[in-house]
Amino acid sequence: MKFSCLKSELVQAIQIAGRSIASKPQTPILSGIYIHANDDGLEIQSTDYEIGVILHVKAEVEKPGEIVVSGRYFYEVVRTLPDEEVMIEYDRSTEIIKISSGKSTFTLLSMKASDFPKIIPMREGKKFTVNSVVLKELIRRTIFSCATDETRPLFMGALLEIEGNKVRMVATNSHRLSFDEGNIESELEGLSQYVIPKRILEEIQHILSSEIPEKVEITCTQSEMSFNIERLYITTRLIEGRYPEYRRAIPSEFSKRVTLSTASFLSAVSRVGLIARSSEYNTIKLMFNMGEVHIYSDNPVVGKAEETMQAAIEGDDIEIAFNASYLIDVLKIINSESFILELNDSLKPALVREPDNENFIYVITPVRTKH
Amino acid sequence: MKFSCLKSELVQAIQIAGRSIASKPQTPILSGIYIHANDDGLEIQSTDYEIGVILHVKAEVEKPGEIVVSGRYFYEVVRTLPDEEVMIEYDRSTEIIKISSGKSTFTLLSMKASDFPKIIPMREGKKFTVNSVVLKELIRRTIFSCATDETRPLFMGALLEIEGNKVRMVATNSHRLSFDEGNIESELEGLSQYVIPKRILEEIQHILSSEIPEKVEITCTQSEMSFNIERLYITTRLIEGRYPEYRRAIPSEFSKRVTLSTASFLSAVSRVGLIARSSEYNTIKLMFNMGEVHIYSDNPVVGKAEETMQAAIEGDDIEIAFNASYLIDVLKIINSESFILELNDSLKPALVREPDNENFIYVITPVRTKH
Repeated sequence: MKFSCLKSELVQAIQIAGRSIASKPQTPILSGIYIHANDDGLEIQSTDYEIGVILHVKAEVEKPGEIVVSGRYFYEVVRTLPDEEVMIEYDRSTEIIKISSGKSTFTLLSMKASDFPKIIPMREGKKFTVNSVVLKELIRRTIFSCATDETRPLFMGALLEIEGNKVRMVATNSHRLSFDEGNIESELEGLSQYVIPKRILEEIQHILSSEIPEKVEITCTQSEMSFNIERLYITTRLIEGRYPEYRRAIPSEFSKRVTLSTASFLSAVSRVGLIARSSEYNTIKLMFNMGEVHIYSDNPVVGKAEETMQAAIEGDDIEIAFNASYLIDVLKIINSESFILELNDSLKPALVREPDNENFIYVITPVRTKH
Repeated sequence: MKFSCLKSELVQAIQIAGRSIASKPQTPILSGIYIHANDDGLEIQSTDYEIGVILHVKAEVEKPGEIVVSGRYFYEVVRTLPDEEVMIEYDRSTEIIKISSGKSTFTLLSMKASDFPKIIPMREGKKFTVNSVVLKELIRRTIFSCATDETRPLFMGALLEIEGNKVRMVATNSHRLSFDEGNIESELEGLSQYVIPKRILEEIQHILSSEIPEKVEITCTQSEMSFNIERLYITTRLIEGRYPEYRRAIPSEFSKRVTLSTASFLSAVSRVGLIARSSEYNTIKLMFNMGEVHIYSDNPVVGKAEETMQAAIEGDDIEIAFNASYLIDVLKIINSESFILELNDSLKPALVREPDNENFIYVITPVRTKH
């Protein structure tokens, strides 16, 4: 094997590939990056059995071939090379990879390419296309609601639901729920549901960091899903099982409705929440009356905090307590200057949404407080 | 106690005070910040018994008094207050501190001011004044050479030496040594030596982060040293014992002398060092001949690295091995575009210095390699 390519393009590819290498790989070969040089350039693969990526890099291939090299060292070496061009050559007799650039020469030990569990792109399954900006926004506005404890594995992922030309993402830990909806670029028959691990969604969010809209082709079966974006292919295992009927958790009627400034309420809740932070449920209380909301918290070992701000209240006075972080999390992803809080009573779930956007819904269960 | 002051000035002071609060204080009172409001404004103190700081903040004091408040909560609360002005009031009957700003009100529990081990500024001892820029530079150019293992406590600090109008700082871990010299703003009789813990020097470096030169008044006895800078007073315990005769470790004659570009050599050593990093002594080899230096490293479980760059060599060819980090550390603090490496043979200590600066010296012991 022998090829030359641009350092910047190679670094970018192995940086992405490196993200799907586990910090403690199950077997040594999984610490490696698979490189296949052929007439089309380079194909780079990495996997931890949960997620797998395939990347393509332009290269001038003098001699085709395939190798596996330590992901960690390969990345660090290539990243620091002095020149913009990189030459890579594999000597089959010594099993050594030679990397040259400018006046630098590195040799790295290799692993057997035949031992690498090569990723086979999905052929079967439902297919649809979504804009990368839509997908990123769905992920950003929901996954913070996923559960972190492992008692309910389904809740450690987010639900991706496709119905007609709609794509929805839902995440919950059973105390709060995020729901967001967008459009896909085609129409699908029936209703399809898939549960994607939160970690994979975070990776996709990270990989799709560019602001330039791209088409993401998604293929899915009940156990596997793949994302194809230009020179990048990601495949992931799905969480098996049936996601609960989330619509039942979204109340449809409310007796009270409050409109608040997003930024002011976020900073007030953050401040008052400081005092609540070391308490069991991180509880802050909200009291709505006379066009104002009083925000307060009380922690016997630290002290108290209290703040007042204007609120447009429709309906009766109400006092209700929430986990401060559950409010802070949603206020951070609200896109509008003001937001709407819909309430029934101090024990019933409340709803957070944006004034001119029916697509996003956040349900939050109050904390019961002793009186 | 009752006063008002500017949020920005209070935050800055408690941020500095917070740095001398241990993460696991020996007693609860040491987790607190002591505040004394009097006719001159506020005096703020904190200590972990090793280091102590006293800060002064301008304030409009309505009612004098003294309190101790949890450093962690006080900082976090004050930092997030909405308004530029802060009002603080202590209610002696409830032992509660009330902090108000804009529409926010916090109350924090207090601790007994009489329990706080108040810092008594040093009266006795040798006194001299040094420019803050000189002091910071002495610290920056030496303390990275301190030992990190606790077998020789003296080497976990740096030596501050005053002689005539000279101030010197020396640090070593017995494998390498940094020496730097500057001037003080007066003249002292005899030779004085003090060993300051590395951690304290790092704190001082951090606190003196401003680029504006200030006068630092230093007072020292054999067990204690204080630094007085405008509105800030720092006092620290010194490491007891006699620092070894460091001058004996600095060779005076060399048979070879190499001049190298600082930036190019730093990046070459960093690259080649990548391969050496997981080996026992992080060893890289340098071979000087024919106007070039060959830099290489060899790690049986990873691979090899090799690089060549120009070098102005005076004297015979030589091959010598060093710990790569010991070279990288000093190359990072060299101020000149090129530097001088002086050598004898491959087993004798080498010297790194700047071409037009006699004040800075770095001694580095080679690594013995098998041939």
